Amino acid sequence: MKLATLDNGTRDGQLAIVSKNLKRCTSASAISPNLQSALDNWSDVYSALDALSRKLNDGDIAGKSFEPHLALAPLPRAYQWIDASAYLTHLQRVRAAKGSLQDPQNEKPIMYQGGSDHLLGAEKDIEVTADDLALDYEAEIAVILGDVPKNPTDDEARNAVRLVTQCNDVSLRRLVAGDLQDGFGFFHSKPASAFGPVVVTPDELAANWQAGRVVGRLQSRVNGLLYGQPRTEKEMVFDFYQLIQAAAQTRQLSAGTILGGGTVANTHDEILPISSDGTGFSCIVEARMAEKAADAEQRTPFLKPDDKVSIQFVTDEGEAPFGEIKQKVSLNKAN
Amino acid sequence: MKLATLDNGTRDGQLAIVSKNLKRCTSASAISPNLQSALDNWSDVYSALDALSRKLNDGDIAGKSFEPHLALAPLPRAYQWIDASAYLTHLQRVRAAKGSLQDPQNEKPIMYQGGSDHLLGAEKDIEVTADDLALDYEAEIAVILGDVPKNPTDDEARNAVRLVTQCNDVSLRRLVAGDLQDGFGFFHSKPASAFGPVVVTPDELAANWQAGRVVGRLQSRVNGLLYGQPRTEKEMVFDFYQLIQAAAQTRQLSAGTILGGGTVANTHDEILPISSDGTGFSCIVEARMAEKAADAEQRTPFLKPDDKVSIQFVTDEGEAPFGEIKQKVSLNKAN
Repeated sequence: MKLATLDNGTRDGQLAIVSKNLKRCTSASAISPNLQSALDNWSDVYSALDALSRKLNDGDIAGKSFEPHLALAPLPRAYQWIDASAYLTHLQRVRAAKGSLQDPQNEKPIMYQGGSDHLLGAEKDIEVTADDLALDYEAEIAVILGDVPKNPTDDEARNAVRLVTQCNDVSLRRLVAGDLQDGFGFFHSKPASAFGPVVVTPDELAANWQAGRVVGRLQSRVNGLLYGQPRTEKEMVFDFYQLIQAAAQTRQLSAGTILGGGTVANTHDEILPISSDGTGFSCIVEARMAEKAADAEQRTPFLKPDDKVSIQFVTDEGEAPFGEIKQKVSLNKAN
Repeated sequence: MKLATLDNGTRDGQLAIVSKNLKRCTSASAISPNLQSALDNWSDVYSALDALSRKLNDGDIAGKSFEPHLALAPLPRAYQWIDASAYLTHLQRVRAAKGSLQDPQNEKPIMYQGGSDHLLGAEKDIEVTADDLALDYEAEIAVILGDVPKNPTDDEARNAVRLVTQCNDVSLRRLVAGDLQDGFGFFHSKPASAFGPVVVTPDELAANWQAGRVVGRLQSRVNGLLYGQPRTEKEMVFDFYQLIQAAAQTRQLSAGTILGGGTVANTHDEILPISSDGTGFSCIVEARMAEKAADAEQRTPFLKPDDKVSIQFVTDEGEAPFGEIKQKVSLNKAN
């Protein structure tokens, strides 16, 4: 089942079913007004949503054209956004930038509490108040959860994954050091993240959802240039089930919690530009660290106003089940 | 106006108006089903809520008995919980514990993103999964906001404060070091916070709300023993308006954001037990640091199962406008 949240003028948007080919959609508001409500009552509404999805895909309902630029974030305001860092290659590259390399053998799943009250639709501008904040994208896979009890069993973690999508964890690199120096973690450096226009149930991914990992490539482009397409199932040291268990170690998680797997990264020695079958990077700071490691000039610039970022997960069958994140950077100094 | 959220079996509870003396209440669900909904539509519902409040206080409506133990957190699940640290005395004492004292002249408002999806009612147990996590309370004042634009003006910040209450930012001290070592900020060390049974509009506090600060004492007790009663307006280096501006530096804040002012702390040389007119501490780790600084044994223990914590803001007129947080620690190893 594929779902989206359409802009209907409300804070939470309107729940819609999207066809498998992402061409058509139909409102599901008669079943649940919005996605949070559906997640709150998942077992009660699932079969009705599933039946509506079948009708749309079988052509029993014509539906209307699905316009991704009208989609809000699946949960425009969520009760929780937890971003983990399951690809240790990313962590190691970024930490090398700060000179704080740790022994990867000692790693455990780490995660931060992100702001979740203003999440961005797939084609919404990244608005920055200044153009010198070293704006970066981070391409990730994220899951949306049902209720998770404290300290969940393997089965409880496994059964908690309701939906899967991709996201852009927007980062202001110039503010990271200040945030971390305070010792209180990311805050100002992590403004609103953006999410895929479509979220899908794990079964929709069939063999491309395996053991708590999504199987395929996460492509990111800046101004049309391919920056990265690392494999999402490769070197994901902690799968989503393990991340759920880690996140719920001391607390329950409520339905609608969004959990990111962290910036997708595979080990390699490339620098930008990469060839069409290269691996590349899911964020700019890694590309810059690779340049430094190769004794090259750190020439890949951070994002500036009017730059365009695209993030799209693609299966080995060439499908993009979550649609595409396509954002433009805009400078908005006024409040 | 005084408001509370009553348990009606739903995730968000039922909005109720509470009388000025906290003795009676009446459902406001005909106006707004819950507090989040009221905050979403504040300007539309304010006069109706205010009129209902007047009727309750004037005796035109009998209402029913207000039972604080039946109150949920004002927002049982909130879209955001930001906890700042505006009392630098607390920060300095706690940092001394970690040997990382900074020059207070260099301080700016610092804050962390807290988990907001499972907030506790005023009399709900603090459930821990193990008894060796160095469980601590932190007594704070918190405000609940309306929508705040990115980079707000002074006036926008001033007008954003909708409600005021007190809270207990539950902390697992043994897990703090691990969280901070990861560099991603507090996570496992900060399980669900608890809030006062009653939230009030700033005007309700009259002269006890001054220049973005609450005026009075925040009393905390452990097993009936007075641990602290520092003045809330004293040494609050950044007022709530400044904290709002700092929090919204790179992002909007949505209606229903809860913003904590941090553990209330005043400078003094006392150690526990304090006299009835002493100042004391709003958390145990500070009491322990004071013992260390006085070359005394660090004898104030962290909280253990069956311990009771009480937190209550009291005005100089002897009133407790937010009611009382009264929690018991319970050990719940099973998930």
